Amino acid sequence: MFKGRDVISILDFSRSDLKTLFDTARYFEEFKGRVFDYLRGRILALAFFEPSTRTRLSFEVAMKRLGGEVVHLGEIKRTSIAKGESLADTIVMLSNYADAIVIRHRLEGAAKFAAEIADVPVINGGDGSQHHPTQAMIDLYTIWRELGKIDGLTVGVIGDLKYGRAACSFIYGLTLFDIEKIYLVSPLILRVRPEVKDYLKKSEIKFEEKEGLEDIIEELDVLYVTRIQKERFPDPSEYEKVKGSYIVTPEILSKSKKNLIVLHPLPRVYEIPYEIDKLPCAKYFIQAKYGVPVRMALLKLIMGE
Amino acid sequence: MFKGRDVISILDFSRSDLKTLFDTARYFEEFKGRVFDYLRGRILALAFFEPSTRTRLSFEVAMKRLGGEVVHLGEIKRTSIAKGESLADTIVMLSNYADAIVIRHRLEGAAKFAAEIADVPVINGGDGSQHHPTQAMIDLYTIWRELGKIDGLTVGVIGDLKYGRAACSFIYGLTLFDIEKIYLVSPLILRVRPEVKDYLKKSEIKFEEKEGLEDIIEELDVLYVTRIQKERFPDPSEYEKVKGSYIVTPEILSKSKKNLIVLHPLPRVYEIPYEIDKLPCAKYFIQAKYGVPVRMALLKLIMGE
Amino acid sequence: MFKGRDVISILDFSRSDLKTLFDTARYFEEFKGRVFDYLRGRILALAFFEPSTRTRLSFEVAMKRLGGEVVHLGEIKRTSIAKGESLADTIVMLSNYADAIVIRHRLEGAAKFAAEIADVPVINGGDGSQHHPTQAMIDLYTIWRELGKIDGLTVGVIGDLKYGRAACSFIYGLTLFDIEKIYLVSPLILRVRPEVKDYLKKSEIKFEEKEGLEDIIEELDVLYVTRIQKERFPDPSEYEKVKGSYIVTPEILSKSKKNLIVLHPLPRVYEIPYEIDKLPCAKYFIQAKYGVPVRMALLKLIMGE
Repeated sequence: MFKGRDVISILDFSRSDLKTLFDTARYFEEFKGRVFDYLRGRILALAFFEPSTRTRLSFEVAMKRLGGEVVHLGEIKRTSIAKGESLADTIVMLSNYADAIVIRHRLEGAAKFAAEIADVPVINGGDGSQHHPTQAMIDLYTIWRELGKIDGLTVGVIGDLKYGRAACSFIYGLTLFDIEKIYLVSPLILRVRPEVKDYLKKSEIKFEEKEGLEDIIEELDVLYVTRIQKERFPDPSEYEKVKGSYIVTPEILSKSKKNLIVLHPLPRVYEIPYEIDKLPCAKYFIQAKYGVPVRMALLKLIMGE
Repeated sequence: MFKGRDVISILDFSRSDLKTLFDTARYFEEFKGRVFDYLRGRILALAFFEPSTRTRLSFEVAMKRLGGEVVHLGEIKRTSIAKGESLADTIVMLSNYADAIVIRHRLEGAAKFAAEIADVPVINGGDGSQHHPTQAMIDLYTIWRELGKIDGLTVGVIGDLKYGRAACSFIYGLTLFDIEKIYLVSPLILRVRPEVKDYLKKSEIKFEEKEGLEDIIEELDVLYVTRIQKERFPDPSEYEKVKGSYIVTPEILSKSKKNLIVLHPLPRVYEIPYEIDKLPCAKYFIQAKYGVPVRMALLKLIMGE
Repeated sequence: MFKGRDVISILDFSRSDLKTLFDTARYFEEFKGRVFDYLRGRILALAFFEPSTRTRLSFEVAMKRLGGEVVHLGEIKRTSIAKGESLADTIVMLSNYADAIVIRHRLEGAAKFAAEIADVPVINGGDGSQHHPTQAMIDLYTIWRELGKIDGLTVGVIGDLKYGRAACSFIYGLTLFDIEKIYLVSPLILRVRPEVKDYLKKSEIKFEEKEGLEDIIEELDVLYVTRIQKERFPDPSEYEKVKGSYIVTPEILSKSKKNLIVLHPLPRVYEIPYEIDKLPCAKYFIQAKYGVPVRMALLKLIMGE
């Protein structure tokens, strides 16, 4: 079911796939101080054409805790890409050396392109502004682990919904479940892309766009927060004007359901103040930690015997 | 024969050494998904003072597939070299920590210098413009594997023969065999160095210099293609003028022997158009893949029990 | 005694701790070509916010020779720090993924701060201008191994005593032993900080500040040399004026005791000329090599069963 497959979009997976993944991840949660031998003799190539810390490190830790090894393509300006080599030739090389490839790339479709070329499984570590499937797996896993279910929940997604690939991938991932309603909360210029809205409609998921949390906070079971980058605004004063509406303050949280959980793909900057960290709703650090067992599960299922 | 020795130039090796190396490499060809335990407990230090992708990655993959470990000196500007440390002191350090060193350096003789200082074997991963012995081993191995022999062949080497260390090392490597004839095809200003020609004469290898493939393509059993860097030409218009003669087109290949193989140390830029990739003569991807078993064989023979 | 503890300052350790450490390090001295299995399944995260070669590489080699694995936070501008993430959040992440963390940071107190946040042991790989405890361990170990004891020795420390964290950490480390006398030799503007002098007084260690070696060289059992960086001097001509007094020449060494040993945390630039390397007093290369067994011992004691 998983063996040898590529991971390009969260939409390539079924509920039942995710069930398998989650059950396997559960088994790997106690990974500290341990190594499992499922992937001994396997090498994972990490081709990060864009900087990343959590995704890269958690893949690396996951692979090593499975007894496997990791090689890094390295910084672009130090590689053959800088000498003018095409992405295709680079992928052929990695495919020839390693047993699977994780790619992160600025361009939409880069992972799919790589998968078409490579003889080995390709995992999308985030490309373009829509797909970051392993992040979505971790996000959904966190909800499942922290709330015991995903069906029936009301979910708010706040921040940059236009360029943020984690938010977009998460929204796609929600469509695999019977979500009660999705609230899409963002500044006007960072609204979710039309194709995502079309997909939500087609999937018959109830959703609504909002410019603030005030009206909806009390309905939410899950609040998924993402960074808003100043650079997205053509006019900096426009940014300063709206910025405040996308900060998750203790005040706004005080109106929430008792069991609300707050997620964030991290890194966060100012959108979740540090004082929130100690509240029981703050689940973004455990979410980040789940990155390891979920990626271990995925690697084992794809690359294992 | 190999144990503990340095690898500075392909000319340090005999035919019989290469026979041993090739036989060992053959055994490692099926390296995918596997780890061999020959170098468990050994650490290879990679000191790449110049960027490299294939050489670095294939050494790393080779070492890990042998059960060994790799450490990287890292980017120069992040190391003690940037603090003013001499190459000699850096090599002493690596020699103290690791069980062997691979060095790549811009300067001619850097690997030899390192080998004189280090207490552990030093492998030249390319230095100056003449030596890249492990690349030559891979090139010769590819010919041996794809054509079954090296003796008696007619070989064309095209591109930058003056600064290209892969081409130069390959030419030196050919002198270890009974080559029928070598054609050296390059723009006038990128002709092979006098010392290489002298060596060919001394070795009584028939060779001829050419400025194009047209006259000779039908004689060739092997065509070894290398990149020509625009920057080598003082006058850019001069570059544009000759550029076309160093592209391996389907037209030119249509005149070749049926069994011609085309090699390239990669990365390629435009000198081999993508449409060539699917032709049976295109062996540069398998050649790159052979980089792993050949380097595995070399590391095992040098560092193993 | 060591298990699970942080390593922030050499002053966190007792003589008896160091005895344990040294005895363990002794056992690991023959590390070449070997791997020990004490830390199989453990992952060490290296968070080097400042460049380093010896410290980083010797920790990496030490961890791998213990059967453990290493992950690198990587270059700052390629990490989440560049996206505006706080040091605290970065440390939480590493603490969630790895079994221990080594941190190097420009700022005083960074390691202590990290240790307060992390759930796993934090080892200071050098922070601010006073603490580099593992370097001090190696320095003291070298004296113990080369001279058989530390008590009763007269020690000169020369170079930048104001900003040099290795020198400062070494001086703190000496206070754990019954040192006969410490000579602090530096240009006026690079004299040891008042807090270090206060600590020496409080520890009832005899010490004296000097601007040259001439008067004292014959008294020394150990000469600890450090780099002086030109940039520390507001006026370059001032630097040129004093520079010569901080070079360890054969002439000055000719006046020393027969058993004097010369140490240096490395990298050295000009302060120890190459001609010294071959003298029997030159112990800085073996000192650097001891970096591996001492760090192996520390990691085993902290992270092992």
